[in-house]
Amino acid sequence: MFIYILSMELIIVGSVAFDSIQSPYGKKEKLLGGSAVYSSIAASILSKSGIVGVVGDDFDKKYYAFLNSKKINTSGLMQANGKTFNWGGRYEEEMSEAYTLHTHLNVFEEFNPKINMEYRNAEFLFLANIDPILQLSVLKQMKNLKFSLLDTMNFWIETKKEQLLEVIKKVTAISINDTEARQLSGEWNLIKAGLILQKMGPELVLIKKGENGTIIFYRNNYFIAPAYPTTNTKDPTGAGDSFAGGFLSYLAKNKTINFGSIKKATVWGNMIASFTVEGFGVEKLEQLTKKDVEKKIEEFKKLISF
Amino acid sequence: MFIYILSMELIIVGSVAFDSIQSPYGKKEKLLGGSAVYSSIAASILSKSGIVGVVGDDFDKKYYAFLNSKKINTSGLMQANGKTFNWGGRYEEEMSEAYTLHTHLNVFEEFNPKINMEYRNAEFLFLANIDPILQLSVLKQMKNLKFSLLDTMNFWIETKKEQLLEVIKKVTAISINDTEARQLSGEWNLIKAGLILQKMGPELVLIKKGENGTIIFYRNNYFIAPAYPTTNTKDPTGAGDSFAGGFLSYLAKNKTINFGSIKKATVWGNMIASFTVEGFGVEKLEQLTKKDVEKKIEEFKKLISF
Repeated sequence: MFIYILSMELIIVGSVAFDSIQSPYGKKEKLLGGSAVYSSIAASILSKSGIVGVVGDDFDKKYYAFLNSKKINTSGLMQANGKTFNWGGRYEEEMSEAYTLHTHLNVFEEFNPKINMEYRNAEFLFLANIDPILQLSVLKQMKNLKFSLLDTMNFWIETKKEQLLEVIKKVTAISINDTEARQLSGEWNLIKAGLILQKMGPELVLIKKGENGTIIFYRNNYFIAPAYPTTNTKDPTGAGDSFAGGFLSYLAKNKTINFGSIKKATVWGNMIASFTVEGFGVEKLEQLTKKDVEKKIEEFKKLISF
Repeated sequence: MFIYILSMELIIVGSVAFDSIQSPYGKKEKLLGGSAVYSSIAASILSKSGIVGVVGDDFDKKYYAFLNSKKINTSGLMQANGKTFNWGGRYEEEMSEAYTLHTHLNVFEEFNPKINMEYRNAEFLFLANIDPILQLSVLKQMKNLKFSLLDTMNFWIETKKEQLLEVIKKVTAISINDTEARQLSGEWNLIKAGLILQKMGPELVLIKKGENGTIIFYRNNYFIAPAYPTTNTKDPTGAGDSFAGGFLSYLAKNKTINFGSIKKATVWGNMIASFTVEGFGVEKLEQLTKKDVEKKIEEFKKLISF
C-alpha cells in the first residue's frame, strides 16, 4: 500500500518569539512574533506552510491553535524546557530602525532545526534570519527543493561571513536590506551591489529599502517596486518577514518561476508588509484576506502609473 | 500698429555659476553651472526658456553663445562688475550629499532680478533656490502666470521662514527634498508632510528623495515615481534643477495641466536628471536629445511594470 504524505508547499525555518514593542503609538507586551510567525501568517493567505522553530513551556496551547487556524502546520515546532525567545524593541517617530531594548534568547539559544518527514519534500523554503550554520543544516535536510530564500543580517555578516557565503552559494534567492547589501558586497551603489551578490550564487537578489521599496535582480533582469506608502505605521516589526512569506506564498501558489511571476510576487509581498506595519505584532496581518491584498494592489497600480 | 512680442514659454530665475567639483570619478574646475543653467538646458529639449540671473565680467561670450545655441534667451542675464558666482563641492562614494568646499557669491550677492518686457508674459516660471524675498519680487513682476514652481533649501527655512511661507502661499508648486519637507512641515512621515505643505498654499508638492525617486501630491491625488537607477553617477550636481527644468518644459509644451500631465512631466524630469548625473557639470545634459529621453522612459516603464 502506498501512503501519500501530503507535503507542505512551503517550509519556514526561523524564530518564534514574544515581543515587547514600544512605538509612538503605544506599548505592548508579550506579542506573538518572530520571523517564522510573521512569515507563515503572511503566507497563509495563499498557501500552506509548515514552520520549524522552538518554543518554551510558556508557549500556551492557544498559540498553536491560532497558528493551526491559519492552516499553518506546527508539527515542526519543538517545545523545550525554558522560556520562549523574548525580544524587546523601541521605535522612534521615523520608524525606520528598531532600538533593541533586550534580547532574551532563552530556548532559542539551543535551536537546532530538525526537518521532519512531513516537511522534507516541500519545494519552497524560507530560511529566515538565523545562524548560517543552522541554515546550512536545513538545506541539507530538504529533499526536493525548487526554490529557497535566505534572509540574514549584519550580525552574521560580521561574525560568520564564511559560513554565510557557503549558504548564499546554495540558495536560489537572498533577501537583504540596503545597508547589509552594501556591507556584504563592499559596493555603495545598490545596482552594482545587487549584481555582485548574484555572483555569490543566488539567481535572485532582493534588496529591501524599507519605505523606499525593493530592487529585484533576477538572472539578467531587474525590477523596482516602490513600497506602498503608509501614513499609519504603528509597529514596523515583521515587515521584512511578512514580505518574504507573502513573496514565497505567491510563487508556491503559482508554481511557475520566471521574471514575470517574481515581479508579481514582489508586489504581493510588499502589499502584505504594508498592512503588517499598520498594527502591533500580527494584529493587522492576521485579519488580512486575499481581497484586501488584491484591492491594495489595484490602488498601488494607480499610484505608480503614468 | 500692433507689435507682437514673442514671449518665452518658461522663465527661469536662479543662479549662474562656475563650479569646482570633486567626486571619486574626477576633479573639474570652472564648470558652467548654477540652477538657471542646469534647468534651462534641461528645458531646452522641449521648450524655449529665458533665464534671469547675474554673471561677472569673467563670463565669456562663449557661454552666451552656448546658451543661445540651446535656444535659451539670455536677455535677462545681467552682467555686473566682479566675478561670477563660484561654488566648490566634493562628493564621496555614496554621492548622496555635497560637501561644500567654498562658496564665493561674488556678483550673485547683489542679485536683484529684473524681469524684462520680453519675459513678463510667460505663463510658466521656475523660481530656483534663491532668497525668498527675491522670489517674491519676481512673482510680482510676472503678468500672465499660469504655473509657478518654487525650489528652496534648508538655509531659507532656517533664516527666512516667514518670507518663504509668503512665497509658498503664492506659487502653484513647490519642489523640496525629503529632509527639507520634514523640516518645513514638522512631520516625519512624508505622505503627511506633503499634505501639510499643500495646506500652505501650492496645489502641487514634489518631494524629491534622490535615488529613491519623487512623491507628487496634486490636489487630492498623489503619485510615486521611482528614480531611474543609475550605476554611473559621476557628479550629482544639478540633478534637482535638471528635474525642475525638464518637468516645467513638459508642462509648458503640453499646455494642459492636470494629474495625468503632471505625472508624465515628473517622469520626464526624472529621466533627464538621471542623464545629468552621468557626466560632470552639463557635459551629458547638453548632448541630450528628445529621443534619448523617450528611449529611457521606455526602459523605465519596463523596470517598474509587473
